[in-house]
Amino acid sequence: MKSAIEAVYHIRCAAAEAEARALAVAVEQSVEMPVVAIEDERVLGEIVGEVRGVRELKPGLFEARIGLNVETTGHDAGQLINMLFGNASLLEDVVLADASFPAETLAAFGGPRHGLAALRARVGAQGRALTSSALKPQGMPAAKLVDLARRFAEGGVDYIKDDHGLADQTYSPFAERVARIGDALRKGGYPTRYMPSLTGHLDALKLQLRQAREAGIDCVMIAPMVSGPSNLQALAQQNPDIAILAHPALAGAARLAPPLLIGKLFRLFGAGAVVFPNYGGRFGYSRETCRALADAALDESTGLKPAAPVPAGGMTLARVPELLDFYGRDVILLIGGNLLAAREHLVEETRAFVTRVERYQHE
Amino acid sequence: MKSAIEAVYHIRCAAAEAEARALAVAVEQSVEMPVVAIEDERVLGEIVGEVRGVRELKPGLFEARIGLNVETTGHDAGQLINMLFGNASLLEDVVLADASFPAETLAAFGGPRHGLAALRARVGAQGRALTSSALKPQGMPAAKLVDLARRFAEGGVDYIKDDHGLADQTYSPFAERVARIGDALRKGGYPTRYMPSLTGHLDALKLQLRQAREAGIDCVMIAPMVSGPSNLQALAQQNPDIAILAHPALAGAARLAPPLLIGKLFRLFGAGAVVFPNYGGRFGYSRETCRALADAALDESTGLKPAAPVPAGGMTLARVPELLDFYGRDVILLIGGNLLAAREHLVEETRAFVTRVERYQHE
Repeated sequence: MKSAIEAVYHIRCAAAEAEARALAVAVEQSVEMPVVAIEDERVLGEIVGEVRGVRELKPGLFEARIGLNVETTGHDAGQLINMLFGNASLLEDVVLADASFPAETLAAFGGPRHGLAALRARVGAQGRALTSSALKPQGMPAAKLVDLARRFAEGGVDYIKDDHGLADQTYSPFAERVARIGDALRKGGYPTRYMPSLTGHLDALKLQLRQAREAGIDCVMIAPMVSGPSNLQALAQQNPDIAILAHPALAGAARLAPPLLIGKLFRLFGAGAVVFPNYGGRFGYSRETCRALADAALDESTGLKPAAPVPAGGMTLARVPELLDFYGRDVILLIGGNLLAAREHLVEETRAFVTRVERYQHE
Repeated sequence: MKSAIEAVYHIRCAAAEAEARALAVAVEQSVEMPVVAIEDERVLGEIVGEVRGVRELKPGLFEARIGLNVETTGHDAGQLINMLFGNASLLEDVVLADASFPAETLAAFGGPRHGLAALRARVGAQGRALTSSALKPQGMPAAKLVDLARRFAEGGVDYIKDDHGLADQTYSPFAERVARIGDALRKGGYPTRYMPSLTGHLDALKLQLRQAREAGIDCVMIAPMVSGPSNLQALAQQNPDIAILAHPALAGAARLAPPLLIGKLFRLFGAGAVVFPNYGGRFGYSRETCRALADAALDESTGLKPAAPVPAGGMTLARVPELLDFYGRDVILLIGGNLLAAREHLVEETRAFVTRVERYQHE
């Protein structure tokens, strides 16, 4: 196998079965048929997944490193995930723990066109953590969301994202919401950027992106596991001037390791910032998972632009110093509901959030 | 809440917490913010998820039935899954067990344009189970795949699907493979239908569908969780003459119940046949899961066309009678690798498979 992706699986099984299970996964994720029935020499030598190593992690848990032929992916994001974990996702005792990619794959996908550095530059921030909040709840008419956005901007937050429930709904059509919020931020002279959430099939995504662009917007959000990783890839490739934030909806926590899926793959496909559920919030990720995810998003060894980690999910103002201690300055902090709970004091609360983040670097 | 989707979640927690957890899921899957911070009366009354019932299934496991506003989905497949399980997929102790949809949703999506009855009619079969096999392994040039397809057709199989690893790869480009296989089947005068696997973003899917159509093909396969459920929805809506088979790659077995995702949702979005890992094969689905999945795909109470269940994943000729006993005649049996293992006797082995299925109805 010349140019290979190396996938790392964790397999729960008895020690006596580990080698055979690793081989079975290698076959499942490549030719998906009995190897004895394969006649083609090239397929046997180049396409069948190659078990490169099996080691025990702890009793009953084994790590298998498997080489997968790059050509099988056709450099398509969906097909890449398919080759990594398509059928193996149906095996309850197999976890896709990690993967590394050859230069050919990195070059073909290209990663973020606008990563952490560009996201800092867009809002005129230098060497500090960035701040963000979320427009919600869904169900409100555009006018109320515009008012919310204006107050967040007044409080000085760097980025405002749509809640991922906001889509193109009759009570708040995408085009109207985006035009009015873009307009309000521009007229107010705020440096704050708005990231609307794009949803639907690729034609819908493209239309929404065009509407956002017409409203002067240069950052958008997409949930790759909801909208399709290939659609993210297409949007990133076709819109090199747009920054993309990836949302983890439907990305699960189950058997596709979050640092790989959210930190590494979403970035590979073109996201310059990745939202994920932070430890100690409403979701169950551990500190170790969050650390590994942030490290993967920022890792410079691949040559791709670093993507900004965006820990979220029940964050509070009180946790800002702790979060900055943990993540450092290469982060976008996202506080949504906790700011909104301030209701009529939203502007002041937002300002307190922003000030706390900005000051932190000087301490 | 006027018109609502009812989602059923299974939540692992202590009895004392069950009501609060159900409410938390209802909030997470709708407004995703503290309810106390919501000022809008309409949002409070119409948009916030409505806990309709919580009951203990067994100690430590609770079922919560939650009403979700239909309008929040915008009748988009991705957004529908997002509203059902987007953020809850990140909660390790929550399973999306089932969902039921109001008439408005059923009408907007429409389900399969070509379900089981149409798939029978396409191959001139009456009231019997259908047969299918798979082209594999990936990595073979088009010429060898054409030869395989011809031999399957010679053996009389009803449907030949691409292995889901076959995509648009340099060693076997989609357009060439599809044109040549379509040509070979037509010239041979076989009633056998070929279902090529479509991959990539929506523009790629559309291009491939056009190429398939030009080759005289009227059935295709797509993996909705790889390609994006909204893309499946768009393909189904825009191509009412094409039958669609859904592949379960990346659909996992974890916390989104297979009968709901594969049997109900893939069908709702437009798939007329759904592949799933059968019990007793290479994957871990139980007999009960398979039964529930097939029942969901065939259920006539919704008014949608029934979709054909396609149990697969390591099936053998020897199991045909047992599978027909279990599923009855409303099924497409799929045997891939086990037929291919016959190598030079592939035609005879395929014929034996077909004969066994055809004869079964007369016993």
